[in-house]
Amino acid sequence: MRQFVMSGLNINSGGHLTVGGVSVPELAREYGTPLYILDEQVIRDNCREVIGGLREHYNAPFTVAFASKALCFKELYRILREEGMGADVVSGGELYTAVKGGFDPKGLYFHGNNKSASEIKYALESGVRRIVVDNAEELELLGEIAAQGGYTPDISFRIKPGIDAHTHEFIKTGKIDSKFGLALETGEAAEVIARAAKMKTVRVVGINCHIGSQIFGTEPFALAAKVMLTFMRDLRENLGVPLNELNLGGGFGIKYLPNHEPVTLADMSRMCAESVTAIANELNLPLPELVLEPGRSITAPAGLTVYTIGSVKHIPGVNTYVAVDGGMTDNPRHALYGASYEPIMPERPNAPATQNVIIAGRLCESGDIITRNAPLPDVKTGDLLGIQATGAYNFSMASNYNRVPRPPIVIVYKGKSRIAVRRQTYEDLLVCDQ
Amino acid sequence: MRQFVMSGLNINSGGHLTVGGVSVPELAREYGTPLYILDEQVIRDNCREVIGGLREHYNAPFTVAFASKALCFKELYRILREEGMGADVVSGGELYTAVKGGFDPKGLYFHGNNKSASEIKYALESGVRRIVVDNAEELELLGEIAAQGGYTPDISFRIKPGIDAHTHEFIKTGKIDSKFGLALETGEAAEVIARAAKMKTVRVVGINCHIGSQIFGTEPFALAAKVMLTFMRDLRENLGVPLNELNLGGGFGIKYLPNHEPVTLADMSRMCAESVTAIANELNLPLPELVLEPGRSITAPAGLTVYTIGSVKHIPGVNTYVAVDGGMTDNPRHALYGASYEPIMPERPNAPATQNVIIAGRLCESGDIITRNAPLPDVKTGDLLGIQATGAYNFSMASNYNRVPRPPIVIVYKGKSRIAVRRQTYEDLLVCDQ
Repeated sequence: MRQFVMSGLNINSGGHLTVGGVSVPELAREYGTPLYILDEQVIRDNCREVIGGLREHYNAPFTVAFASKALCFKELYRILREEGMGADVVSGGELYTAVKGGFDPKGLYFHGNNKSASEIKYALESGVRRIVVDNAEELELLGEIAAQGGYTPDISFRIKPGIDAHTHEFIKTGKIDSKFGLALETGEAAEVIARAAKMKTVRVVGINCHIGSQIFGTEPFALAAKVMLTFMRDLRENLGVPLNELNLGGGFGIKYLPNHEPVTLADMSRMCAESVTAIANELNLPLPELVLEPGRSITAPAGLTVYTIGSVKHIPGVNTYVAVDGGMTDNPRHALYGASYEPIMPERPNAPATQNVIIAGRLCESGDIITRNAPLPDVKTGDLLGIQATGAYNFSMASNYNRVPRPPIVIVYKGKSRIAVRRQTYEDLLVCDQ
Repeated sequence: MRQFVMSGLNINSGGHLTVGGVSVPELAREYGTPLYILDEQVIRDNCREVIGGLREHYNAPFTVAFASKALCFKELYRILREEGMGADVVSGGELYTAVKGGFDPKGLYFHGNNKSASEIKYALESGVRRIVVDNAEELELLGEIAAQGGYTPDISFRIKPGIDAHTHEFIKTGKIDSKFGLALETGEAAEVIARAAKMKTVRVVGINCHIGSQIFGTEPFALAAKVMLTFMRDLRENLGVPLNELNLGGGFGIKYLPNHEPVTLADMSRMCAESVTAIANELNLPLPELVLEPGRSITAPAGLTVYTIGSVKHIPGVNTYVAVDGGMTDNPRHALYGASYEPIMPERPNAPATQNVIIAGRLCESGDIITRNAPLPDVKTGDLLGIQATGAYNFSMASNYNRVPRPPIVIVYKGKSRIAVRRQTYEDLLVCDQ
């Protein structure tokens, strides 16, 4: 088969799959299955690509902030910090994880459509760089809490630019029919920002949008830049509110399947820089500080999940079900979105595919499927099975449905492996039970 | 509004909603939101209805086993035990929880399409009443492990009876195109059972099926009973394998919305008893021990989730989004299945509905919706909002996506409340981080 959609995979002299230079069968033996493996070099390379694109092509300050919702654990923030990344967090729990991971809160952008009072207080106390205000009620709440604590936070606003990024309905978030942000078309955004500009308790510095996820082309981002910069010009000229920060969010598509052909991160980054520069010049605006918030595109291609195959059911004329020792508890993306993944056999990555199967999980639920139409060689009970590009929205969305413990995260780097998050135990599952 | 779909709800003299005789606004004040509330009396009543139906109408031994995947925490097993229930478990983690909850393993049925060797060993050591074998590989594995440990477990087999229960595609599990069980049509089931009957390491005592979930009519169960009993007759007469246990699984539908009209649990139970009795007589079979495995129908109607409303977004001509302080992390059923729920305003349950809204969660994901087309009165930031019938597949499917802590479970009973599972803390979320 050898359909590598992850860049860090290779085959060693024994014919086994390696990730980050380490044998996958050996990792499975050492740490057990199911197992999340993350390739640190790929994460670092992806950070460098996005940052590099802006550094070379953007002549004003910028930040690349990792979208923590894609993947969030302490050790990751140490890597992001070393690479000069910022991070976006969407909850008190993500903020807590970043801080505990040693990340400087001055690099954090705090998002969320429904932040609680205690989360806003926590963000102010932590000294996050930016609170991205979602709605009018939140502006009011933030103003009160800031006044009580004597803070004057720098804030930006989440805007719905009305862009349809031609992606999955579920993850289309720039449209007006969305729970996120302030609408441009209705005048809501201008009205709320004008009000905020007059408040003594906050400083309005920018606007933010997020037009969707797993976007393959560059056009939607250019379109978003145009809409957002035009809005910045209107705010400046019509309302006398000059803003200095443009946050275009994330959504860069990645290669899940061999036929996916996403634009490289370097090109995505360069294109964002060039679009913003060209449009700002055209509109006679000073170049704003530019923020990008990639999540999936940084870590998904670095992640390999390794399972052990249990039962193999050939149902003649119907389907073949290959059951693994994990499932929707560690990877709910097929159950949620019908997502597809590319499998790989760690013990014989070169074996030619002879069948298309359904890779099913171990959970008591028919929808517990990892992927369908998966090309595999003949397989049997006890074989290892790898699922590629699982480094985003797998660990972060994991559950304990059926009381199944969450797998560990093992990081591989420079030929060595280490546990970043240990496997949950049965005892862990009951720690809150009285 | 006052659309009660849960039986344990009422309105007190102050005009507030009560559950199990306790004021919901007071519970929210005491325990915070989001909050899972469970009405113990409703759980007990539901157990009694199913058990009562069999006791009155079935003239042979029977067990009603709660399907733990619907809801699983220690304290629940103490209630189930007191009501004379058995339980089905589908993993080592569920078995562990039941045992830690003081449940006698002799009342446990161990299911699962892909049990691991360590789970099978754990089940044998614990002395579960029945291991329900899913497939041929598992039979072989179980035989080896039993031989090594000197066990001779009583086993049954999961069968695909080929029934289409006319329910949601996702939760249709009795069809041949399923990852669960042995197919009847292909002869697979007879072949594997005949093989097991000759093994010295196991005793084959029964067969099991599970035809789907949220089934409103009684016909699918009568049909399943017919298929399964006919198969038992064939096994007895053609293969000389007499079985004494028929496990018809669960799947009894519940009232999520006001227009749902499920058959009562007492009627469902009676009908199963009568169908099995009539068909067994017709086929000249002795009455088997009958096992039913309701899950959702026992606990879902006992559960109320209480949230606090954050932002309220009227998007003129488009939609109104009411955001709450939880979401797909505590209730993923809309995201997974497009499920719908009936809301209730705990502080003014009698207020007439004036609008249909989308109740959205706080997670950074467009698909993070609790329910659509939800009838509500005018609502504002800070109001409590209840979602009815969340006592199954909410807590058990909860995740920490966006690092959001899981809400606590508070049980109300005889006018008092107690914490059964405490709220997760940020510290809990990082306990596995190295």
